[in-house]
Amino acid sequence: MTEAPSGFTEQDHADRMDRATRDAIGAGLAGLLVTPGPDLTWLCGYRPTAITERLTLLVLTPESEPRLLVPALERPDAEAAPGAGATRISEWRDGQDPYAAAAGLLRPQGHYGVSDSTWALHLLGLQEAFPLTTYRALTTVLPMLRAVKDAHEVARLAAAGAAADAAYEEILAVPFAGRREREVAEDLARLLKEHGHSQVDFTVVGSGPNGADPHHEAGDRVIRRGDMVVLDFGGLKDGYGSDTTRTVHVGEPTEEELRVHEIVRTAQQAAFEAVRPGVACQEIDHMARSVIADAGYGEYFIHRTGHGIGVTTHEPPYMVAGEELPLVPGMCFSIEPGIYLPGRFGVRIEDIVTCTEDGGRRLNNTPREMTFVE
Amino acid sequence: MTEAPSGFTEQDHADRMDRATRDAIGAGLAGLLVTPGPDLTWLCGYRPTAITERLTLLVLTPESEPRLLVPALERPDAEAAPGAGATRISEWRDGQDPYAAAAGLLRPQGHYGVSDSTWALHLLGLQEAFPLTTYRALTTVLPMLRAVKDAHEVARLAAAGAAADAAYEEILAVPFAGRREREVAEDLARLLKEHGHSQVDFTVVGSGPNGADPHHEAGDRVIRRGDMVVLDFGGLKDGYGSDTTRTVHVGEPTEEELRVHEIVRTAQQAAFEAVRPGVACQEIDHMARSVIADAGYGEYFIHRTGHGIGVTTHEPPYMVAGEELPLVPGMCFSIEPGIYLPGRFGVRIEDIVTCTEDGGRRLNNTPREMTFVE
Repeated sequence: MTEAPSGFTEQDHADRMDRATRDAIGAGLAGLLVTPGPDLTWLCGYRPTAITERLTLLVLTPESEPRLLVPALERPDAEAAPGAGATRISEWRDGQDPYAAAAGLLRPQGHYGVSDSTWALHLLGLQEAFPLTTYRALTTVLPMLRAVKDAHEVARLAAAGAAADAAYEEILAVPFAGRREREVAEDLARLLKEHGHSQVDFTVVGSGPNGADPHHEAGDRVIRRGDMVVLDFGGLKDGYGSDTTRTVHVGEPTEEELRVHEIVRTAQQAAFEAVRPGVACQEIDHMARSVIADAGYGEYFIHRTGHGIGVTTHEPPYMVAGEELPLVPGMCFSIEPGIYLPGRFGVRIEDIVTCTEDGGRRLNNTPREMTFVE
Repeated sequence: MTEAPSGFTEQDHADRMDRATRDAIGAGLAGLLVTPGPDLTWLCGYRPTAITERLTLLVLTPESEPRLLVPALERPDAEAAPGAGATRISEWRDGQDPYAAAAGLLRPQGHYGVSDSTWALHLLGLQEAFPLTTYRALTTVLPMLRAVKDAHEVARLAAAGAAADAAYEEILAVPFAGRREREVAEDLARLLKEHGHSQVDFTVVGSGPNGADPHHEAGDRVIRRGDMVVLDFGGLKDGYGSDTTRTVHVGEPTEEELRVHEIVRTAQQAAFEAVRPGVACQEIDHMARSVIADAGYGEYFIHRTGHGIGVTTHEPPYMVAGEELPLVPGMCFSIEPGIYLPGRFGVRIEDIVTCTEDGGRRLNNTPREMTFVE
């Protein structure tokens, strides 16, 4: 049986596709339509070289085994996927209409779940070919499908987290003062790869005022003594994601810097302690946000508290106001509150946490207290 | 005025958005809805760090200046885009409904063009928020919008092509025999970067039987004397794409290898010579395919003849049977016929070509005759 780099077998993928089909029926759907991206990777282990305008479509319905429609010239790649043996593969060729080729696989009036990231080009193509079909975004209608991880998946996420932690421990030893953010980011990327990551998704190095822009990656700014530096990094190891943030200091912190850092640490701890089955996702956000608001910094915490993680570094469920989904054992997500003082500095502290029967378990375990670098 | 790495100004982007709006009206649309990806990059120079579930939406309508809705925490990135000054930016925050935030920007019964790669999640969100709006894929309804390049864009593509050619000339000097495909691919990637590419999109090294799989990238196979090797590589330089293929030989070719290579070269030349304004895209495909079919290898040419190129390495128009779009001066696209003999070897020869008033002009100019490496 072919194995993916992640080590999941054809049977594992067959089981996932079977469960997804049953969940879809339970949600009142005719089936699921899955295009390249995390759903396809998770369900049948197939990750095409590129996501393009050529339609690749996995159709899961109760009437049939899983069917995978692929462009003819990508068929060898599809057949090599670890879950491919559990699907029936068909193909369409350049010059043919792929939506007509999909015709035999769909019910003309079916109500389907469709991958969130399916291109509008393809959804509109299907809607035009089958005007009476209707669709809902897969994570809207089946939010638990990929969100709840099994023990093997949690183990993969834990290994990715441990590798990111090891990279962090080593980055503390590199020089910061006098080097550009970009150079430290390159060190981080190298360390993630040395510790087994196959793919680096982001290496944020936000020094001084750049730390106050949560989406700043790493630029040409030269890090100076006296800077706070936000380090937020992650990627994929053996097919599962890492994502962790620590905020370090180059030199002597001011009293305000110490205070803001401690508020964020306390907020992160409060949210972590709230993790247990049945608690709504929005409650995790609320716990972190309350600590920061009570300390007078509410307006400077400008993003949600967290996001899910799995075969991508960024996926549902979201720890955000309005998200009423309950935590379930096996869910894995980030807890990453921050305070961003425009033009001055920012602090963010982030761990991946998994929900267990007994509460939260952190998959990142480096010190969360303010740490100093040279 | 801020400049993108590609050097296009706010005025350039304002002109593009203005033209796109006028073209949309001319096509009977209420406007265009553009999400992150090549359309957004081209129209307003904004390329978010990642394409995620958070809605970013550029709305182009004749009633207003361009409006750009962004997640609050990505606003600083959006404001830094070279075309941002020509848009009115608004934001939505985590926890708010982004489709409700889009409400003020759309007509409840409008018929819109939407980016091909817009996520189904967002299209379904808009369809649910505005049940009477209707949509068409942008490249279906406005196929010429990005397909026809202006002189500055052609110059960027020519510079990217020249850089790829320089990388090819240097790769001929590296050892092939005894090394893994992956190692040669790494050399190619390094050379593309040395010659000014900011991003490498693909480095296919298909040796021996691997050359017969057009989508094979590069693997652990050790290249041997006697192998044909398909080299297909490209990426972005100053925001515009390169993509070229040559098939080289390690050692002494057989008579059949020489014959198949010459058939592909002749097919590529025939398609190139057919390029002139007014010729249908499918005719370019037909010219290459006829040569290969007449030589008895028709069943082994298993993909279309070419694709457009611009701010991505792979975009409409497609040189494929059924594509009746006429060539227009300024269109830039690949001509890349191939013959793939399963289990044995493959040959592909590819140039980027631009259509001028007087016919085709190649943007890749390395020798197309069989070339030998060590």
